[in-house]
Amino acid sequence: MIIDKLIDRIAELKNPTVVGLDPRLEYIPEDIAAEARKLHGPTDAAVKYALLTYNKGIIDALCDIVPVAKPQIAFYEQFGARGVEAYLETIAYAKDAGMIVIGDVKRSDIASTAQAYSDGHIGRTDVFGVKTAFSRADFITVNPYLGGDSIEPFLKNCAEYDKGLFVLVKTSNKGSGDFQDLIVDGTPLYEICGQYVEKWGAGLVGRHGYSSIGAVVGATHPAVVAKLRKMLPRTFFLVPGYGAQGGAAADIAAAFDKNGVGAVVNSSRGIIAAYKTQGYRGMGYADAARAAALDMREDLRNRDI
Amino acid sequence: MIIDKLIDRIAELKNPTVVGLDPRLEYIPEDIAAEARKLHGPTDAAVKYALLTYNKGIIDALCDIVPVAKPQIAFYEQFGARGVEAYLETIAYAKDAGMIVIGDVKRSDIASTAQAYSDGHIGRTDVFGVKTAFSRADFITVNPYLGGDSIEPFLKNCAEYDKGLFVLVKTSNKGSGDFQDLIVDGTPLYEICGQYVEKWGAGLVGRHGYSSIGAVVGATHPAVVAKLRKMLPRTFFLVPGYGAQGGAAADIAAAFDKNGVGAVVNSSRGIIAAYKTQGYRGMGYADAARAAALDMREDLRNRDI
Repeated sequence: MIIDKLIDRIAELKNPTVVGLDPRLEYIPEDIAAEARKLHGPTDAAVKYALLTYNKGIIDALCDIVPVAKPQIAFYEQFGARGVEAYLETIAYAKDAGMIVIGDVKRSDIASTAQAYSDGHIGRTDVFGVKTAFSRADFITVNPYLGGDSIEPFLKNCAEYDKGLFVLVKTSNKGSGDFQDLIVDGTPLYEICGQYVEKWGAGLVGRHGYSSIGAVVGATHPAVVAKLRKMLPRTFFLVPGYGAQGGAAADIAAAFDKNGVGAVVNSSRGIIAAYKTQGYRGMGYADAARAAALDMREDLRNRDI
Repeated sequence: MIIDKLIDRIAELKNPTVVGLDPRLEYIPEDIAAEARKLHGPTDAAVKYALLTYNKGIIDALCDIVPVAKPQIAFYEQFGARGVEAYLETIAYAKDAGMIVIGDVKRSDIASTAQAYSDGHIGRTDVFGVKTAFSRADFITVNPYLGGDSIEPFLKNCAEYDKGLFVLVKTSNKGSGDFQDLIVDGTPLYEICGQYVEKWGAGLVGRHGYSSIGAVVGATHPAVVAKLRKMLPRTFFLVPGYGAQGGAAADIAAAFDKNGVGAVVNSSRGIIAAYKTQGYRGMGYADAARAAALDMREDLRNRDI
C-alpha cells in the first residue's frame, strides 16, 4: 500500500522531508533562464523548459536523501497548458528518480466532477477506449469543504490504483482560522474534519497502522498538531509551514507518534531557492538545495520527541 | 464593471441561464468522435479536437440566446495538457462569440499560491517579462475553506483586471451538509461564509447594486436560497442544480430579488446532451441544445416570483 511505501522510504532515508517543487521564474538561475529564452524567446515554451530543467537539477540533487517531492500545480498551471506539461513531466521525472510524489492540487467538486479530477490526477481517464494515466502522482491533496460525497470518487481511485490523499484539515496560513477554527458544539471545525478523514481512511490502513488517506496539518499551530496527532491515530500528516513559513522543528515534533512515525514535513523555497539565501550563497542552486535538505534533515532529527 | 456587463446581458437576452460546458466523451456525437479518431487516433489530441468541435457547435447554437458559458475545468484537465488547451480555447471561442464566461475551477490555496492561481485564471502571468493572460474567463469559482487571506489575491486581480468570483457558499450536492450546514453559535457555516462573501465584495459593487464577488448557492436547497437572498443583498448568485440535478424553476425563484435580478442558473447536461434525452431525440446535438435552452428560458420566465 502506498502509505507503507512512504513510511518505509522515510525510514530508509531516515528523513521525513518533502521537497516542495514550487518554482517561480525569479528562482531560476540566470544560466537556465538565458538558455530557455535563447531556445524559445519569452514564451510559455521557454517557461516549460526553464521549470523542467530547474526541477530536474533539484530532483537529481535530492533523490537519494529526500523521500518525497510535492509539486504545487498552481505554479505550473498559471502558465497554461505548457505549464501543465511541466507539472506532469516533473512528476514523471521524480518518480523515475525513485521519489514518492504528492501532487499538491487541492481539488474539490461535487461527485461526477470530482470523479473527473480523481481520474485525471490519481486514476485513469478513458481516451476513446484507452484507459490513460495522465499523472503519475502517488498522492494528491484535496479540499473537503464540499463534504463526504465529494471525497468518495477520490477514495475509490485510491483503493483501485493504490494511491493516497492528504485532505486539508488545518492549513498553515493565518486566515485558516476564519472557517477551520469555528466552534461547532464545543469542537473546532478542523477537528470535525480530522474525524472525517480518520473515517474515510478506515478501509485503506497499511501494515504500519497508518492509512493512505492523510491530513494536511500546518506546523504553524503546534498545539493543534499535538491534539490532532492524539485524536487521529491512523491518519498520516503532511505538515507544511516549516522554515520559510515560520514553523520550527520543535513545533513539528508533535506531528510524530512515539515511534517517530506519522508525518512528512514540507519545505519549498527553503530548499529549492536555498542558493539565494544566506548560508548557501555562492553555491550552485542544486548543491545549495542538497545542503539545505541535509541541514533540514539534521534539524528534524534533533527535534524534541 | 464585469457584474454590470453580466446583469445587462441577462436583461438584453431576458435569460439568466448559464450553459455548463462539461463535455464527456459519451456526449460527443458519433460523427465528431469518428472524425477525431480518424485525424488523431485514440489520443489526447483526438480528445482535444472532439471537445472543442463539440463545444463550438454548442456555443454557435446558443450565443444569441444564452448569456453565460461555464466550462468545468475538471472535464478538460482530466485529459492532461491537451485537455487544458481545450478548456482555454473553449473560453476564447465563447468570448469571441459574445458570451460571458465563468471558469469553474473551484481553486483554493494559501496566499502566494493563491496568487499564482489568480494570475493564471483571472490575471496575468509574468513570462520572462511579458505579462500574459492565459485564460480569458470573466469570472472563476473559488473555494473559501482556507479563509480570507486565501481569497485576497483573487480580489486584487478582480479589481485590477475587472474580473469576478463566485465563492462556494452552499453547494448543490447532498454531502454539502457535512461541513456547510454545521451550526456555529446558532448560525450555519454557509451563512457565515455568505457574510464573508458580502464583505469581500464591498469594494466591487457595480451600478446595479451587485458586486463582482458572487456566491455559489445550490438550487437543491430552496429555503436556504431564500434566506441567503435576503441576508446578502449585494451578492449575486450562481445557482447550480437546475434540471438534471433536481432543482425546479420554482425552487430557483427565491434566488432573484423583487426586480427579477440577482442570479444566474446553470444547466449542463440538460442542455449540452439534450439530444440524448426524450423530447429532443432525433435532433442534431446543437439544435437540441438550442431547443433545450429555449425551453429552460421559458421555464425560468414562468417561475413564481
